[in-house]
Amino acid sequence: MIEPLPDLLIEPVVRAALAEDLGRAGDITALACIDAEARLDAVFAVRQRGVISGLACARLAVLALDPQARFEARCADGDLLNPGDVAAFVSAKARALLSAERTALNLMGRLSGVATLTRAYVDAVEGTGARIVDTRKTTPGLRHLEKYAVRCGGGVNHRFGLDDAILIKDNHVAASGGVGQALTRARAFAGHLTKIEVEVDSLEQLAEALPHRPDVIMLDNFDPDALKRAVEMAGGKVTLEASGGVNLQTVRPIAESGVQVISVGALTHSAPVLDIGLDAV
Amino acid sequence: MIEPLPDLLIEPVVRAALAEDLGRAGDITALACIDAEARLDAVFAVRQRGVISGLACARLAVLALDPQARFEARCADGDLLNPGDVAAFVSAKARALLSAERTALNLMGRLSGVATLTRAYVDAVEGTGARIVDTRKTTPGLRHLEKYAVRCGGGVNHRFGLDDAILIKDNHVAASGGVGQALTRARAFAGHLTKIEVEVDSLEQLAEALPHRPDVIMLDNFDPDALKRAVEMAGGKVTLEASGGVNLQTVRPIAESGVQVISVGALTHSAPVLDIGLDAV
Amino acid sequence: MIEPLPDLLIEPVVRAALAEDLGRAGDITALACIDAEARLDAVFAVRQRGVISGLACARLAVLALDPQARFEARCADGDLLNPGDVAAFVSAKARALLSAERTALNLMGRLSGVATLTRAYVDAVEGTGARIVDTRKTTPGLRHLEKYAVRCGGGVNHRFGLDDAILIKDNHVAASGGVGQALTRARAFAGHLTKIEVEVDSLEQLAEALPHRPDVIMLDNFDPDALKRAVEMAGGKVTLEASGGVNLQTVRPIAESGVQVISVGALTHSAPVLDIGLDAV
Amino acid sequence: MIEPLPDLLIEPVVRAALAEDLGRAGDITALACIDAEARLDAVFAVRQRGVISGLACARLAVLALDPQARFEARCADGDLLNPGDVAAFVSAKARALLSAERTALNLMGRLSGVATLTRAYVDAVEGTGARIVDTRKTTPGLRHLEKYAVRCGGGVNHRFGLDDAILIKDNHVAASGGVGQALTRARAFAGHLTKIEVEVDSLEQLAEALPHRPDVIMLDNFDPDALKRAVEMAGGKVTLEASGGVNLQTVRPIAESGVQVISVGALTHSAPVLDIGLDAV
Amino acid sequence: MIEPLPDLLIEPVVRAALAEDLGRAGDITALACIDAEARLDAVFAVRQRGVISGLACARLAVLALDPQARFEARCADGDLLNPGDVAAFVSAKARALLSAERTALNLMGRLSGVATLTRAYVDAVEGTGARIVDTRKTTPGLRHLEKYAVRCGGGVNHRFGLDDAILIKDNHVAASGGVGQALTRARAFAGHLTKIEVEVDSLEQLAEALPHRPDVIMLDNFDPDALKRAVEMAGGKVTLEASGGVNLQTVRPIAESGVQVISVGALTHSAPVLDIGLDAV
Amino acid sequence: MIEPLPDLLIEPVVRAALAEDLGRAGDITALACIDAEARLDAVFAVRQRGVISGLACARLAVLALDPQARFEARCADGDLLNPGDVAAFVSAKARALLSAERTALNLMGRLSGVATLTRAYVDAVEGTGARIVDTRKTTPGLRHLEKYAVRCGGGVNHRFGLDDAILIKDNHVAASGGVGQALTRARAFAGHLTKIEVEVDSLEQLAEALPHRPDVIMLDNFDPDALKRAVEMAGGKVTLEASGGVNLQTVRPIAESGVQVISVGALTHSAPVLDIGLDAV
Repeated sequence: MIEPLPDLLIEPVVRAALAEDLGRAGDITALACIDAEARLDAVFAVRQRGVISGLACARLAVLALDPQARFEARCADGDLLNPGDVAAFVSAKARALLSAERTALNLMGRLSGVATLTRAYVDAVEGTGARIVDTRKTTPGLRHLEKYAVRCGGGVNHRFGLDDAILIKDNHVAASGGVGQALTRARAFAGHLTKIEVEVDSLEQLAEALPHRPDVIMLDNFDPDALKRAVEMAGGKVTLEASGGVNLQTVRPIAESGVQVISVGALTHSAPVLDIGLDAV
Repeated sequence: MIEPLPDLLIEPVVRAALAEDLGRAGDITALACIDAEARLDAVFAVRQRGVISGLACARLAVLALDPQARFEARCADGDLLNPGDVAAFVSAKARALLSAERTALNLMGRLSGVATLTRAYVDAVEGTGARIVDTRKTTPGLRHLEKYAVRCGGGVNHRFGLDDAILIKDNHVAASGGVGQALTRARAFAGHLTKIEVEVDSLEQLAEALPHRPDVIMLDNFDPDALKRAVEMAGGKVTLEASGGVNLQTVRPIAESGVQVISVGALTHSAPVLDIGLDAV
Repeated sequence: MIEPLPDLLIEPVVRAALAEDLGRAGDITALACIDAEARLDAVFAVRQRGVISGLACARLAVLALDPQARFEARCADGDLLNPGDVAAFVSAKARALLSAERTALNLMGRLSGVATLTRAYVDAVEGTGARIVDTRKTTPGLRHLEKYAVRCGGGVNHRFGLDDAILIKDNHVAASGGVGQALTRARAFAGHLTKIEVEVDSLEQLAEALPHRPDVIMLDNFDPDALKRAVEMAGGKVTLEASGGVNLQTVRPIAESGVQVISVGALTHSAPVLDIGLDAV
Repeated sequence: MIEPLPDLLIEPVVRAALAEDLGRAGDITALACIDAEARLDAVFAVRQRGVISGLACARLAVLALDPQARFEARCADGDLLNPGDVAAFVSAKARALLSAERTALNLMGRLSGVATLTRAYVDAVEGTGARIVDTRKTTPGLRHLEKYAVRCGGGVNHRFGLDDAILIKDNHVAASGGVGQALTRARAFAGHLTKIEVEVDSLEQLAEALPHRPDVIMLDNFDPDALKRAVEMAGGKVTLEASGGVNLQTVRPIAESGVQVISVGALTHSAPVLDIGLDAV
Repeated sequence: MIEPLPDLLIEPVVRAALAEDLGRAGDITALACIDAEARLDAVFAVRQRGVISGLACARLAVLALDPQARFEARCADGDLLNPGDVAAFVSAKARALLSAERTALNLMGRLSGVATLTRAYVDAVEGTGARIVDTRKTTPGLRHLEKYAVRCGGGVNHRFGLDDAILIKDNHVAASGGVGQALTRARAFAGHLTKIEVEVDSLEQLAEALPHRPDVIMLDNFDPDALKRAVEMAGGKVTLEASGGVNLQTVRPIAESGVQVISVGALTHSAPVLDIGLDAV
Repeated sequence: MIEPLPDLLIEPVVRAALAEDLGRAGDITALACIDAEARLDAVFAVRQRGVISGLACARLAVLALDPQARFEARCADGDLLNPGDVAAFVSAKARALLSAERTALNLMGRLSGVATLTRAYVDAVEGTGARIVDTRKTTPGLRHLEKYAVRCGGGVNHRFGLDDAILIKDNHVAASGGVGQALTRARAFAGHLTKIEVEVDSLEQLAEALPHRPDVIMLDNFDPDALKRAVEMAGGKVTLEASGGVNLQTVRPIAESGVQVISVGALTHSAPVLDIGLDAV
């Protein structure tokens, strides 16, 4: 079961999205064509096989416009649904429901798209012991939700921001005068709960980094053979993360190299939406 | 040339994105590894052929962290760039630039992705006279930016929200008791600057709608033959919009049917990011 | 019946207004003089004949300070009330009710003032077929509410903002090099759901505009004779809007000219408040 | 000279107003019809005799959209201008200026309207020693600006909110068990910098209040004879405020009764806008 | 009994504090270690003798994360509790309660610390008739809550901000050209509900100020003898406030000088937290 | 040198604090008593020996009200100053400077108080190798600033929020069924950059925790002998944090036990303000 985010962290996103869609005049089509007291029963139905994420967004969108609406989830975030499956049933005032529809679907569709793509990567490395993790290549304003969606797909989260771990990249190495100096500076600065990761782009740099014992070493754009060699060199004393050039074709050989973690930017920056619709019942 | 949005509408998004990424402690890697006064010259370089959109986001992200930074666009939004082309040059304090990098790239990459996909559709229908338009299937909080990106790709915008035109869909028709009644209610409600569109899913419904003279009729999931028949029936007296089942394979025959407008949800809900990087120079 | 705005669009205004009035110390008079548990039953009573608008504002103001309060509307927005008539009954904690009183009355009084003045214009043109519409001359922050109030008074809304229709005025014409060029540029820029209006200030300009078939032509400061001539020239092929110099004396002859729309800035920029009071019962 | 508010308290109102007007797509007319680099010189000119207030709003609106604009006030807030007089000159990018125009005029027109009406009351009581003061009957969100406008018109401010003085009204008296008890409770609650005012509606209540020595006594709906009698009874030991039934006809006899303060809700709740326009030069 | 602030003024602080603590990923410890449906009964217990303030903060923090939680106050704000005493009982979902714990304790502990220190000063001057008041030396964002806590401790509030009374200090006197001129300018500027206080630092300045009849004179850093002399000079015609050099040792002799008010910055700027814990029961 | 926070994270706090202090009418004393164009040169001078923190807050407060002000720091955050030392020189419009004074001092005084107290603890453990760290017992809304102040005092930061490391406390252990199970659950949930800490309250629990190899073990309320024993048991394989009962008397013996980290809630929850004043020069 996927551990949920508190509504406190979701509701502001949902309400801002509704306000963005309602604009200054509200849903003029619903006002024109639907009677104020008309009710509508409907289901959120998936039209594509995929992993659901974001049921709370749909629930909160509908309730924001009709606090007396009834919203019944028919599955849980993280469940794999097939075309025609119902994710949730809702009974609400027709105007409120139709006004909330696009906001609910935009959020749930996007998050489910992230979850579904994550699941594909997770499935592709099944049995290898490698974990699929996300990146900071997320949509501005939605990072916490998209990282939640990654968890729904079976992935694990990398850093949530610039402030929750030290990740030394090429520019930092260059500015510090080398991998060793950068790690020394990082160690001096970091608190006792801050992990330190360093990116290397060659086996030579890896050899330079290993004696400094960072928590994690990111192997950037290594091919599978180089990854295997890196795994041998590390000897299990540090977590290795493969990064760069990862797609659904390459991820399995990468995972089989023995790295513990594979980070995939596409999970959040290029996941197509999962097609979900609202059908009157 | 693409007409820009005022910074006033972009800056809040950029600053919120930076705050989301900086979190409570700021960029601890930059603080640890980069000297406070170190400077960095770098370029935003594209790694994939694509249409640029969102230069202002990158500029505002860098300036938010270093108000004295120099940002020089080397192209304009809407330009088509090739791998290796430089979109912009920037000279700033190294910490500020590295802290802003991800926010700048997340926004510019996403918007350029939307622009690039839009251009592909626009190119596919070239010469047919059909316009490619977006939908409300946008990212919550970024609608105005994503619709701007559609314009950068040569597309045209559909409604910005529930409040700026009446768009009667199946549920509204059902609730009103038919296409005719729905259009009558809409006409009575609408102001003199509000256009009215109605969705139909068959030629029979089209025939029912035509005498009511809506501004636009959306033909939902019509095949090319049905679209052609619809164009004949409309006789140029109403704008016709094709919707549903549109992809890069189907869009040309759809356009050749003679419809004036083709709406494509994928432009904003499923565009992969354009790969752009920040390279020190 | 007037179609209501969702509470989602009203509540932020109400809560901000309460916070503005409560300041940093809250209602020190109520705290000093009213027992914490004391209750108060009261009615919102009109002291002047007028059209009610903004009942939801009063309801939300009271509920924001006492979520258990009972608020019973005794009329609907859009109803015409006479002195002494009761708009709503409320039973709440006395402190909460007295603290919310001014916010409730400021909003309901202002909106009812707008609705009442609108009704006067609508009544003045009764039978002519002309519609009374508002302008963008609204109170910053309250545009959506004041435009709602116009609807409560029987009026119709013009543009909600700079973004929901093209309205070409004298400065745009000058910058474009003439009415024709301006309309050509507008047509090229506009989406298929965007209407185009152009302002003209003479019959010559009207003649120049007509062949370009804008959706609406605004006749600025035309006298009734010129308006009639314009109506003849237009021949029903375009919506004509009279604007400028409209007051309760001039509006009937303007309407009798045959224009379809008359816009009146005073509806929102100069409507006196409707006198409403809160009376203990 | 009128002491200005800090921009810090004005700018958020101006920027929110611009965002409200620009909506999600920005000023599509300016984008369509005005070249990006075109400039415009213009003046804010008054079309009616009146007192100017809110120059800073106009300045900040223009600068928010064009930080390089030049804005030159040609008068000061509080000045009385005649039709045709120029309040300010501005030179800016044409798009920015036209996009900011309505926001600038909405704020400056409204505030100038308040200042102008205040000046009329102030002039009407000239020589009597009475001060014209406002009330809390202000526009939600604009209280600090409207109270500033009252000062521009020569008026003085009453309470800014429920928290900055104790004002005991009829409901508080009733809940406390009488004028005396209410004043005793207020005295016990108030800090040493909090003034206490009580509203009375008869000479009997006035007699009851006087021995408790409130700072101010509000005489609600007293006719001029009763006001004179009240002034005699008070003997200069307490500030007297006349309230209710004040208009431009009644205010002079009220002032001649000898009361020190006359509060007028209409200053802020019913002031018509001052007609100001932006003219290209 | 302490008169409470409306929740409307507390809830935004509590929700922002929760969001600050939850960050982008939420309470990952609770998510990892506590079952979603597990419940927890607990008490807020004081570990130090002190005056409680801020029960509403704790209640709102818990309810924000679990709207179905039961929160039962076992005392009232302003009550003096002993080590081991229970301030409140709560029954909630375990995750929600543990996630809200620190926010609840941070606010309640801080406010109770302020109340407890205030009570110590109030007790120290018991019987003298002097009132203990706070200053504007408060925590940014929490002024209204900390001033409420002062009231819980038996103190009285000084100004809430720069705008609710005139307080002329040395720099203002210098800029005005003397105490007399400053008071004259203040009188001309102030509304009829605005009190005027002036700070003096010698008996000579006091003599200069007295004839101008300010509402309050602040005696800055006077020793007890000078205070007594000042009380004689004032002859009860003006409120005297002692300020500067006040601590728990000096406050009694200061109070015995006969001043009516003693202001103490330490109440809010240096009060240690009251130790309160959340104990499972 | 202390690495600064970006202004982007400080400015919103400063501006909100100014708005809180200015209220709805602004600084009425400055408006009344100071000429609009008067200038003031002044210094921020410390009146107590202490460590400076928050110069940027003072700078941003002054610049927010007078963008042309000159602010010159005469020391750096983290410097130890003596009574009479000048922290910064400022030249600004007199009104702006006096209006910003309290906000500047409230923030700089509070942060310097935190830095000063931190320094006292750091000095007390000098030479032992132990690090002084803070807790989450911070002021709501100011956590990032107070943790920065801890760094200014030579301390190191613990978690910034519930989301940036797993910290298993007694309630989590109880809910999980023991230290071992809790650590197993945590390990399964945590990402590869998330450290895991567990709190133990006895040597027995320590023995239970050690084989699970958490990153950090918090020894809660251990006396120095028990701490020494714990250090022996851990054998350098895990970071040990002493917590509870830490004050300036006990911290040295605690440090001498050999623990690497000592956390002190008082750093942020009970630090008295550092006395800083603004003196005209």
